[in-house]
Amino acid sequence: MTDTPILLTPGPLTTRIETRRAMLRDWGSRDPAFIALTAELRERLLAVAKGEGTHVAVPLQGSGTFIVEAALATLLGRGSKLLVLCNGAYGERMVAIARRLGHAAEALRWPEHRPVEPERVAAALREDPAITHVALVHCETTTGLLNPLPAVAAVVAEAGRHLLLDAMSSFGAIAIDLSVLPVAAVLASSNKCLEGVPGIGFALIERRLLDAAAGNGPSTSLDLHAQWHGFEKDGQWRFTPPVQVVAALVEALRLLDAEGGPPARLARYADNLAVLLAGMRRLGFELFLEEAVQAPVIATFRLPADGSLPFGRFYDALAARGFLIYPGKLTQAETFRIGCIGALDRQDFARLIEAVAAVLGEVRSASAA
Amino acid sequence: MTDTPILLTPGPLTTRIETRRAMLRDWGSRDPAFIALTAELRERLLAVAKGEGTHVAVPLQGSGTFIVEAALATLLGRGSKLLVLCNGAYGERMVAIARRLGHAAEALRWPEHRPVEPERVAAALREDPAITHVALVHCETTTGLLNPLPAVAAVVAEAGRHLLLDAMSSFGAIAIDLSVLPVAAVLASSNKCLEGVPGIGFALIERRLLDAAAGNGPSTSLDLHAQWHGFEKDGQWRFTPPVQVVAALVEALRLLDAEGGPPARLARYADNLAVLLAGMRRLGFELFLEEAVQAPVIATFRLPADGSLPFGRFYDALAARGFLIYPGKLTQAETFRIGCIGALDRQDFARLIEAVAAVLGEVRSASAA
Repeated sequence: MTDTPILLTPGPLTTRIETRRAMLRDWGSRDPAFIALTAELRERLLAVAKGEGTHVAVPLQGSGTFIVEAALATLLGRGSKLLVLCNGAYGERMVAIARRLGHAAEALRWPEHRPVEPERVAAALREDPAITHVALVHCETTTGLLNPLPAVAAVVAEAGRHLLLDAMSSFGAIAIDLSVLPVAAVLASSNKCLEGVPGIGFALIERRLLDAAAGNGPSTSLDLHAQWHGFEKDGQWRFTPPVQVVAALVEALRLLDAEGGPPARLARYADNLAVLLAGMRRLGFELFLEEAVQAPVIATFRLPADGSLPFGRFYDALAARGFLIYPGKLTQAETFRIGCIGALDRQDFARLIEAVAAVLGEVRSASAA
Repeated sequence: MTDTPILLTPGPLTTRIETRRAMLRDWGSRDPAFIALTAELRERLLAVAKGEGTHVAVPLQGSGTFIVEAALATLLGRGSKLLVLCNGAYGERMVAIARRLGHAAEALRWPEHRPVEPERVAAALREDPAITHVALVHCETTTGLLNPLPAVAAVVAEAGRHLLLDAMSSFGAIAIDLSVLPVAAVLASSNKCLEGVPGIGFALIERRLLDAAAGNGPSTSLDLHAQWHGFEKDGQWRFTPPVQVVAALVEALRLLDAEGGPPARLARYADNLAVLLAGMRRLGFELFLEEAVQAPVIATFRLPADGSLPFGRFYDALAARGFLIYPGKLTQAETFRIGCIGALDRQDFARLIEAVAAVLGEVRSASAA
């Protein structure tokens, strides 16, 4: 459709038409056909992260923030203390959510362009034995930075604490192997690297940890223990599920499988990023992060320091050409972001670079005139 | 499509194909086009209940239960006390949600087949001056009973308390006129009489009441004051919205307008119920409720007392013919439910009655054999 733009955002993303077409039918949410679809959803989510032996999949209605809050409300019990490893807005949001829930929560912070350092985490855990849970944002969507999950997971496990992983913008592309990595809970959503449509978050939680979490938290809707028990009891969602969003996500998970799973998806996204970076550099744009810590998920670029290209004007000019980019979210530098994820490939990014070049040409001739 | 069944449930419902087709495109959730769609959504929701002068519309990701919990978490402050008028499962759920949130909450109960009596409500409010808020379920989906909203609203207003109305299964069909009815908050969802797909709930809340509710409750995700401020600030959702569900709901609201608004929709549903009741009675089924309190939303019927038609068998036989009915939810009688709402008309119900007759014929010949 001509009115569907190319979404170069951290999500909602450009999805495949097969995924959207899966929303064309109505489902009875308590009918055996939908119960089977829910079972397939839960199995496929676990399989993406090889969690079948240890974890259970608990999907939840709502956005990514809903599943993050639900996991904190359910898994932090009385006397818990959370340490959040922060180098962006999503870490800070977890601190705020946990505190509002009434839990002790502290932040260990790094600058937005620097990855979490496992040694500092180890030291913090040695210093404060009251900390029971550690939260890490796998890929900080604020910048596009990839945090060192395996090293952080090792340090947290060594210290005998539980690791909660916000894998919102990595799940489905960047490897998370729960059969070897000690991660208590992985949190993600339908509309990022899985390339489904938004409306569902999900948690993969260690079965024994979730089993011990009955009745935690002030919320009925966000209680993941009760949500899990609902699925286990009769295969049904406790409360009305977004049936079309579920159908789209199952279709998207089948397409992920058909593509070759997370490794193939990561390769496509890395290819998208390579075309993007080469093209943008050729046009004079500077990547905010060092390339070594840049995930092939979303890239942050600095706007020209001379103010010749205000974000609003850049956005509108690219939108008129069918590309939607994303504003920066940094506390300091003037930036914008371009996502590499979604049902897009190197041809889309080559066309984007042509569009950016055309916009720059327009800006220059306007200022020369 | 042959694989889309006719849904005779309290939702998700059978929707119009135009509504489902509205989900075929991708949207950037922070793009001006989607901001305009969100503004249209909020305006249309208010207009359905004539709340433009007094109320604000706050949509929220999730199911109906999420918006009920969000309203209780946001509107009940320190020192609040809730009285829930209960004659079914949804009233009882509100009591449980409020108590888990840490609020004082009591139930005033009636049998499941009896409507709420305004005089008893008035007496309860006289007896307990600590009660600040009263919750009423407009149409109890447990049975299909319609509670007397105008009379209850008058009594609650007379006593100077705030009325919270769960209008989940009535909104869009049964009249709620906020320009004359004193209702502090109306709660409903996308997938019932509005005939959208599930994934969004919404609250219409008195502006001055919501304005005074900043920071209430333990939840970040379910904070309707913050959600409202997000919309007012830049027209965007605070957290990723289910963009396709929003697009479907806006299309469904346009279709509601085109049909003639709630009065026309109510007339179609009443016609559906009339065909259903006449046909089912002809086949020997007994309506659980007295007809005077039966809403044209969902009808509860008793299963044959002789056990000749177990629910599972009845369900499967009708499902094989393309009709999905719904189990009963009564604490006592053996019942089943048939919804009258959704994109269905009297022809669909005439075909249903033929299918029920055929199933009964099969059952009789099987037991005669």
